[in-house]
Amino acid sequence: MSKLVIVGTVAFDAIETPFGKTDKVLGGAATYIALAASQFNVDGAIVSTVGGDFPLEYIDLLEKRGIDVSGIEIVENGKTFFWSGKYHNDMNTRDTLVTELNVLADFKPVVPESYRDSQVVMLGNLHPSVQMSVIEQIPNKPKISILDTMNYWMEHTLDELMEVISKVNVITINDAEARQLTNEYSLVVAAKKIMKMGPDFVVIKKGEHGALLFYDDEVFYAPALPLEEVFDPTGAGDTFAGGFSGYLANTEDYSYENMKNAVIYGASLASFCVERFGTERMLELNTKDVNKRLQQFKNLTQFDIQLT
Amino acid sequence: MSKLVIVGTVAFDAIETPFGKTDKVLGGAATYIALAASQFNVDGAIVSTVGGDFPLEYIDLLEKRGIDVSGIEIVENGKTFFWSGKYHNDMNTRDTLVTELNVLADFKPVVPESYRDSQVVMLGNLHPSVQMSVIEQIPNKPKISILDTMNYWMEHTLDELMEVISKVNVITINDAEARQLTNEYSLVVAAKKIMKMGPDFVVIKKGEHGALLFYDDEVFYAPALPLEEVFDPTGAGDTFAGGFSGYLANTEDYSYENMKNAVIYGASLASFCVERFGTERMLELNTKDVNKRLQQFKNLTQFDIQLT
Repeated sequence: MSKLVIVGTVAFDAIETPFGKTDKVLGGAATYIALAASQFNVDGAIVSTVGGDFPLEYIDLLEKRGIDVSGIEIVENGKTFFWSGKYHNDMNTRDTLVTELNVLADFKPVVPESYRDSQVVMLGNLHPSVQMSVIEQIPNKPKISILDTMNYWMEHTLDELMEVISKVNVITINDAEARQLTNEYSLVVAAKKIMKMGPDFVVIKKGEHGALLFYDDEVFYAPALPLEEVFDPTGAGDTFAGGFSGYLANTEDYSYENMKNAVIYGASLASFCVERFGTERMLELNTKDVNKRLQQFKNLTQFDIQLT
Repeated sequence: MSKLVIVGTVAFDAIETPFGKTDKVLGGAATYIALAASQFNVDGAIVSTVGGDFPLEYIDLLEKRGIDVSGIEIVENGKTFFWSGKYHNDMNTRDTLVTELNVLADFKPVVPESYRDSQVVMLGNLHPSVQMSVIEQIPNKPKISILDTMNYWMEHTLDELMEVISKVNVITINDAEARQLTNEYSLVVAAKKIMKMGPDFVVIKKGEHGALLFYDDEVFYAPALPLEEVFDPTGAGDTFAGGFSGYLANTEDYSYENMKNAVIYGASLASFCVERFGTERMLELNTKDVNKRLQQFKNLTQFDIQLT
């Protein structure tokens, strides 16, 4: 089993969807990534920061799932990162209502000593300089490093983002962001351009339309499970990244063939995440649920045409 | 091998895309359906009408592919149906510039005597009363009847459309139309509502995002092949329907399991259609091309997760 280090936000979210709204609840990219990765019993650690207002029970909840939390710095006189958003009726678009950086503004990530030999590095969506600092703290090149990012960093810190992109093996990015980063409409052409920036593997997330994994001239498609109801999309992309990185850390096989399985696991876990508000569904997930869902993904995609 | 009867337009199209524009070229739903179905060497016939202005070489071209054209009525003093459209830069939306019904306005379909025992009936997009007339001319219930339609008929002839929907086994419809017909956003819920209207199988086409096949509580997903360039989407939906119906007629197996293969064939053939203007690519397609493309679909979708 490989060690997995995860950097990203541990945060408060307040979410409004057509189905209802929440108060401040547990959220953040690293939280969703770690909850998904913990399905694979990986030896994983979160590197993040929270304020003195962050309930210790949330940290306990992560620790109970076998996640090392010693890299979560608690700034006693600071406030936890807070995001609030409201989804539109189609659930594909949202407005950000509030973003309070708080303790994140001065965040200097410190990878715990015992995770500086991690084989898998998962860089959740954060300022690229923070992501770069984590890369620099892993002196032996990890087997695989995975970068998640978003349009905000393309618009505000493009040079630093490009530097991080040049250092990683895998990037996960959504379709609109892939187009923005490359100025190409075709996702096939966009993926090829992004590979030239550094990564060997490009995962393009298309929300309710699934995700594409590109490698060299190959492409693999993980659909999203068609659902009767999407309750809250918050964290779906991070859950995908957590399933993806957790599966790779668990299997220690970083080949393209095994990465296909990893994106299917990512899509499966993401399909649970959206069934309830915030982290609710992920917190009560068990192996039986996951295996049943994977069988649904097989039924959804596997066919039997014999070619001569 | 089952007999296949196809009703739909045989037409002139003039197409404009960001890549260029055509004069009046061969088009029409029945044309695309028949060209795709002819890949399976089915015993198929077109029921349609054209004017005296329609080049006989176009009819020859269909006949040379083994398609019975005796059901194409030529109205010597009439003009052929003409459609002209312009695609926007994203290729997912288009404006209709011209629609001239011409000989279609008074079209009374006549199914050739030798195809009144067809086992497979493919009702291409046309006025629902024309589609119903074809159903009524097949006295023995066919093994399978497939309906394609569009939003125009929902808006102008809903009662007649609902009558046809109640008579068929399979409906193919795009995502926006499925939502419009049912007033449901979730495609899973929409498909279930449509099944209650009559069809056992519902195929929802999502353009560049592939197609979903629903049956009972089951769902199967045929992705669209990610392409570097979509040259002209005209006829892709009809080509999908032609591949689907042609494969079913060829295999004579109308089970859900085999229908999964049929939607993969449909998606494969549609992926060729969009590579050139109009019918160009379909006219030069060979079995080797198709098998190579099917292998790409396998590579795109097949994975190897063993569940315990």
